[in-house]
Amino acid sequence: MNRKMIFYITGEMVILEAILLVLPLLVSLIYGESCALSFVFAIAAALALGGIMMLIFKPSTTVIYSKEGFVIVALSWIFMSCIGALPFVFSGEIPSYVDALFETISGFTTTGASIVRDVESMSKGIQFWRSFTHWVGGMGVLVLVMAVLPTTTDRSIHIMKAEMPGPVVGKLVPRVRQTAKILYLIYIGLTILQIIMLCFGGMSLFESSVHAFGTAGTGGFGIKADSLAGYSPYIQWVITIFLILFGINFNIFFLILMRKFKSAFMSDELWTYLGIIAVSVLIITANIYPMYQNLSDSFRASSFQTMSILSTAGFSTADFNAWPALSKGILMLLMFIGGCAGSTAGGVKISRVIILFKSVRRELRRMIHPRSVSSLRLDGRNVDDQTINGVGTYFAFYIGIIMVSFLLISFEPFDFETRFSSVVACFNNVGPGFGAVGPMGSYADYSSFSKLVLSAAMLLGRLEIYPLIFAFSPSLWAKK
Amino acid sequence: MNRKMIFYITGEMVILEAILLVLPLLVSLIYGESCALSFVFAIAAALALGGIMMLIFKPSTTVIYSKEGFVIVALSWIFMSCIGALPFVFSGEIPSYVDALFETISGFTTTGASIVRDVESMSKGIQFWRSFTHWVGGMGVLVLVMAVLPTTTDRSIHIMKAEMPGPVVGKLVPRVRQTAKILYLIYIGLTILQIIMLCFGGMSLFESSVHAFGTAGTGGFGIKADSLAGYSPYIQWVITIFLILFGINFNIFFLILMRKFKSAFMSDELWTYLGIIAVSVLIITANIYPMYQNLSDSFRASSFQTMSILSTAGFSTADFNAWPALSKGILMLLMFIGGCAGSTAGGVKISRVIILFKSVRRELRRMIHPRSVSSLRLDGRNVDDQTINGVGTYFAFYIGIIMVSFLLISFEPFDFETRFSSVVACFNNVGPGFGAVGPMGSYADYSSFSKLVLSAAMLLGRLEIYPLIFAFSPSLWAKK
Repeated sequence: MNRKMIFYITGEMVILEAILLVLPLLVSLIYGESCALSFVFAIAAALALGGIMMLIFKPSTTVIYSKEGFVIVALSWIFMSCIGALPFVFSGEIPSYVDALFETISGFTTTGASIVRDVESMSKGIQFWRSFTHWVGGMGVLVLVMAVLPTTTDRSIHIMKAEMPGPVVGKLVPRVRQTAKILYLIYIGLTILQIIMLCFGGMSLFESSVHAFGTAGTGGFGIKADSLAGYSPYIQWVITIFLILFGINFNIFFLILMRKFKSAFMSDELWTYLGIIAVSVLIITANIYPMYQNLSDSFRASSFQTMSILSTAGFSTADFNAWPALSKGILMLLMFIGGCAGSTAGGVKISRVIILFKSVRRELRRMIHPRSVSSLRLDGRNVDDQTINGVGTYFAFYIGIIMVSFLLISFEPFDFETRFSSVVACFNNVGPGFGAVGPMGSYADYSSFSKLVLSAAMLLGRLEIYPLIFAFSPSLWAKK
Repeated sequence: MNRKMIFYITGEMVILEAILLVLPLLVSLIYGESCALSFVFAIAAALALGGIMMLIFKPSTTVIYSKEGFVIVALSWIFMSCIGALPFVFSGEIPSYVDALFETISGFTTTGASIVRDVESMSKGIQFWRSFTHWVGGMGVLVLVMAVLPTTTDRSIHIMKAEMPGPVVGKLVPRVRQTAKILYLIYIGLTILQIIMLCFGGMSLFESSVHAFGTAGTGGFGIKADSLAGYSPYIQWVITIFLILFGINFNIFFLILMRKFKSAFMSDELWTYLGIIAVSVLIITANIYPMYQNLSDSFRASSFQTMSILSTAGFSTADFNAWPALSKGILMLLMFIGGCAGSTAGGVKISRVIILFKSVRRELRRMIHPRSVSSLRLDGRNVDDQTINGVGTYFAFYIGIIMVSFLLISFEPFDFETRFSSVVACFNNVGPGFGAVGPMGSYADYSSFSKLVLSAAMLLGRLEIYPLIFAFSPSLWAKK
């Protein structure tokens, strides 16, 4: 294990965070808010910590393998969350450090679960930082560094693989740095487009930026107590459409940009994703129609909520906790499914769901014709057995983590629905759940212990389990 | 597809049921109950239907393959449930046919979920039949027929494989008929031993038989409103111990009988099973101690309930729905795990859980050392990739069925905990869940539609999904 390299890159990430913190500092200066000082302190802390780490752990060799990749990703996310929580505490807007850590991890992991009871009274700088963490975490902090730093070698693919969600991570172009750059350019382009379109709807630049960050990262932090319920249908539709876009595998945008339309639209994952959206929207619209007595309202609410949950953003335009149980059941199912691999969305990911479905079908065939050999195809390509096996294993691990997390928070005085949906909503990086943690509720009443459990669940969900397991595996650290 | 053979054997099974129905008929005659007549009618109906089926579908060839094996098992269970419900309806003790069907399927699948509100007022004959279905379903009706009929050929292994739970079904001895016979002899031997031990505790022969049936099949139907809470600690301990025994893979008993102690105790599944029991009992005892203020009471209640749920019987000596959430959470986890493969218990089965665990570990190793080849071992033997893959696929299918069933009953006015635990408790063949379907509640208030959904879940759980899928697969029937 190349320990020095691990801590060196982690230090780099902390320095990067200092740079990122300049943005909310500027916002608070523009609005003349006193929280500006807390950003200055946080930046100072980040520069000091990151600088010391980079000095102490100057690596003799930059060679890393996949295990270092996993550990770098896990530690970077943990360090950045610990530092990112400081402005909330320094400004006094979230006095408890555990609460602030929960909020920051929820931000970076693009979960959007909040312990803030009164988001509207927060300062603009803090609101901005809170939403900006979504944007940073969405495409991945390490991918960002790889796009920017000239030192990125092709070994960095190990880091990229560890941070990017999905069962198979491919490079768009042969060089890792180029791939990271292209991904971020698409990401930035779409975000700017959304900001412009939201401004057209009458939002201020601040409001539209904050909401575009939450959409792009599929995070879900907003700045209103009722999330997006108070905004115009136009705004709600713009966000719905961008949620659809940010739930799509970014490879597809790249293929479209390359004018490879045929390969782009041959994606099984894309069509399954769109199919799931269509079916869910239809059922929920019919199911909630009696509550709205108006087709356009129920269709809009249903479309918005379906996309908000499937993309695991977690915005709301309605208190879906008050919807009929069928709609709530579908929304919970969507939490598990999540968006496409290679998007900013959470959940199990559509491609894994497809592989699981197809492997069930293959198993059925094999049981009838034991000697038959059948391959499993995705996007017109064969999926090898190791990947299929890996998906099955990931799913089992995934369900196991839900069960263990649920047990760990079971002493909480909340009802079953609240506790269960808290775990599901945090682990899948959705944010709001049902019951007391519904769109009108918050996670504030959980104990500190449970907040840490749920924070761990958010990180496990965003980083797809393995990096954290490796980072805390003594046997890995012990080996030379 | 050998359709004639399928319906011929199903007809045989219906005739078998007519014979089995003679037992409750005798019980009702001994107690001079009027329900005797309803058994006579049911026997007549079974003889007529079975006879007609065997006449019409006299097969020209007895050759069958695995697909016929699956379909035979599925249809036999469905037909036997439909006939088995008749005495409940004829006697007027469960007037609604859907209710009676739910109760019968719950019986045969050894679930023990009940729609009966007042079980104590039922006649002895009906009570006996209700519990006897547990015993019949526990080891499997088709295994019973194979043990008895001289026509059992080695092709019958396809039927046996389809009915026996677990990822790998092995023959104890080279001949299928011998294997079936040995299994049933062990089963009968243990049941008689339990009846004797319960009689020692002061139970009447009727009471002890009924409870031994519920224990042996790990079903859980009792004859008291408070299940086993009113019985002595001795009785409760006897049942606890036999629940442990009936949750063990019967192969181990066979090995012990053959004096192959070394192979018997080399079973990973056995030790994992005992380990899970020990850990769960300890945690629950500590957790419920404040409620009992007495170590022996809390230890007994915890041991009993752990075993009742892990073996998926579903008896109760306490209203565990009123226990702290941690204990309830552990019990729900145990529902998923279930007993050993090759036992009469339900759930995912311990051996599958072990394989899933080990495949996660293997995947972790593979991610760090991509070129390493590592095998997965169970009971000292290598598990081949196809089996591992099959277990992963089964688990995904399993979770999918829980999600779909949960959606289907989501329009019910019950709370989340009740609905979710209903699905989990029925699908894993446990019986009682939490909330309104807790040990003191019943499934009576569910709509007929939901009762049918839950009945299907029970059958899917007992037969481990595939037989029913094949039985209702048009493409399989279409092929010649």
